[in-house]
Amino acid sequence: MFHVQESPAKVFATDAAGTRTELPALWLRERCQEPESLDGPTQQRLFNPHQLDADLALVAAEHLGGHWARLTFSDGHTGRYDLRHFADDFDQEDGLPTPRPWNSDIDFACITRDWEALSDHDAFREALETYLRHGVIILQNVPTDGARLVEVGETFGHVRSTNFGKYFEVCSRPESNDLAYRSVPLAPHTDNPYRDPVPGIQLLHCLTNETTGGLSTLVDSLAVAEQLREEDPEGYRLLATVPVRFRFIDDGVELIERRPMIHLDAMGKMDGVHYSPRLDYLPLMDEESTKAFHRARRRLGELFAHPDYEIQFPLGDGELMMFDNNRVLHGRTAYDPNEGFRHLQGCYIDRDGPTGHYRAIVKQARPHQATETTESVTAA
Amino acid sequence: MFHVQESPAKVFATDAAGTRTELPALWLRERCQEPESLDGPTQQRLFNPHQLDADLALVAAEHLGGHWARLTFSDGHTGRYDLRHFADDFDQEDGLPTPRPWNSDIDFACITRDWEALSDHDAFREALETYLRHGVIILQNVPTDGARLVEVGETFGHVRSTNFGKYFEVCSRPESNDLAYRSVPLAPHTDNPYRDPVPGIQLLHCLTNETTGGLSTLVDSLAVAEQLREEDPEGYRLLATVPVRFRFIDDGVELIERRPMIHLDAMGKMDGVHYSPRLDYLPLMDEESTKAFHRARRRLGELFAHPDYEIQFPLGDGELMMFDNNRVLHGRTAYDPNEGFRHLQGCYIDRDGPTGHYRAIVKQARPHQATETTESVTAA
Repeated sequence: MFHVQESPAKVFATDAAGTRTELPALWLRERCQEPESLDGPTQQRLFNPHQLDADLALVAAEHLGGHWARLTFSDGHTGRYDLRHFADDFDQEDGLPTPRPWNSDIDFACITRDWEALSDHDAFREALETYLRHGVIILQNVPTDGARLVEVGETFGHVRSTNFGKYFEVCSRPESNDLAYRSVPLAPHTDNPYRDPVPGIQLLHCLTNETTGGLSTLVDSLAVAEQLREEDPEGYRLLATVPVRFRFIDDGVELIERRPMIHLDAMGKMDGVHYSPRLDYLPLMDEESTKAFHRARRRLGELFAHPDYEIQFPLGDGELMMFDNNRVLHGRTAYDPNEGFRHLQGCYIDRDGPTGHYRAIVKQARPHQATETTESVTAA
Repeated sequence: MFHVQESPAKVFATDAAGTRTELPALWLRERCQEPESLDGPTQQRLFNPHQLDADLALVAAEHLGGHWARLTFSDGHTGRYDLRHFADDFDQEDGLPTPRPWNSDIDFACITRDWEALSDHDAFREALETYLRHGVIILQNVPTDGARLVEVGETFGHVRSTNFGKYFEVCSRPESNDLAYRSVPLAPHTDNPYRDPVPGIQLLHCLTNETTGGLSTLVDSLAVAEQLREEDPEGYRLLATVPVRFRFIDDGVELIERRPMIHLDAMGKMDGVHYSPRLDYLPLMDEESTKAFHRARRRLGELFAHPDYEIQFPLGDGELMMFDNNRVLHGRTAYDPNEGFRHLQGCYIDRDGPTGHYRAIVKQARPHQATETTESVTAA
């Protein structure tokens, strides 16, 4: 993948299709790997590369054999490079498993794990991978004696307190004087688009559900947005670029944020939505664009609730679902609280908990690079 | 600002320059204000406007006098509108004070307040406004007996735990066997650009500083970025659009995020930076763009540390500085730990704490709108 040319001195990256890209001198110089420039364990730089001369040039490049090279720059710096380290920069997923969009055909077993089994290191790594691919995992046998969801949250990341505290209660009790009352369904939505930052990952733990309704619903916005993009590219573009105003008023706070409904990450890849039809305000555009925007958001809502995409299932006692609050929308069907108790607990953790753990675990599991390195140098 | 035309039925918004913009029917219909459509206290909708017909039209508009109108739509809905509510959509600041960029000429008194005085409601509102305008506030007389910064943080928002816990310690002690050691300076930076989400607001509380060095430094990226934009528009554009990879490796986690160094909000307004020269990786571009990008980031670093922009000051015992972690960069000058103890405590809160409180307090302070409203209707 990386090729060293000795005269004139150049280093190239070659992709799978054979296209060569020259790696600029500043790019290379900043990635020098000597212990005096780079701290081994943290991979943190010991110099400030922003201060390098902008006209820095590569003056010599020597292939040392294997994946090793010696590069010399016009500022006098010379150093040995393990070219394999450059691969990190070309990894579109930054070390994470590629997301696998799903629809309602999803095999439930593939996203369900036993909580107690995750104390095993390999099982935990595999559960992280499952969560990262699907944006959701369902854990069974989480004890219902107290706020055990906080323990689960702290295993995957750090629980993030809000005005509800460390976790919140979702419960209803049967009340004989309110027989006609049926708890309303909640259409698929993401939580708190009016917050900065938006909660990253939600955990919902069922302590007890004695009602026959109140099914949990989940839907993958990655799959739905892709269908919208195919059906209506212009509508998709509007939802991904024109910010909507979200507002929420509560005791002592008024929260307002503007953000597009379809979220693209810094690399332009769609990774989730901000979707809460009770809280958003159509942005001001001309009549034509307003209609196009509205049609796209209406179609998005239809697809989120469509049986091809939405799954509905009873979250049983002791079951906990953990999902990316922006990638995977959640909701529930209606239920009759007079049938019995229904009690769930919820909390949020930051998105970089599972990703941070996953990368570290995968790296630990790799054959030790330092050893390999020494051998290659000897051979060169 | 809002004008109702009865035939043909149209509603217009007029800006300060006299430019009229027609408000589309869907935009108006979604903002209906009857109690059966909109919950008064929370201003939350009781219907899903995404399901409206995209070809909805305004069929009648009647000016009722004052700021009141009756609008009728092709779906049969008719409702009275208080036109003043539309102003929220045209408020670029969403109810917040306009940020006031500052340089090293800033009058210190204007960002310094007494912590104990903030128990007064008006003083608290005024402190929030100061913080929101400058991105920083310094509080004096915060007691040094224990982790009182958590109390300060909970007054302005919610303390956000990280792997350091609820707060972290920054301290050094004199050690007779290490006389030569000088604690290194920290150039201006923002914290944790490799996290998702990035910490929003940082609190740093000085419990004691017996050293003569170790001055705290702060610099406003709003002022600095504006100078860069004037000097080098193309470099500014590159820093604001091309994502940089940030990486941090710690015990058990490897965190990677890609984001541009200059951050634009959803409306395209610059509101902060991600700046940490030990942790970023130059993105792969052609040679020319690489040099242009590098020149711009180097200039940005020069300006951050320039005496025209950076302030240096001793943070005294019992003083606490609270600053927007992305708008205002922080650092410290070198110090000699052998001169005495230096002990600070730090924590993070979310960015929507101060903004959410400020909007609610300002709204409370307004003449009661419901009363006003009734009077206008009577008059009409």
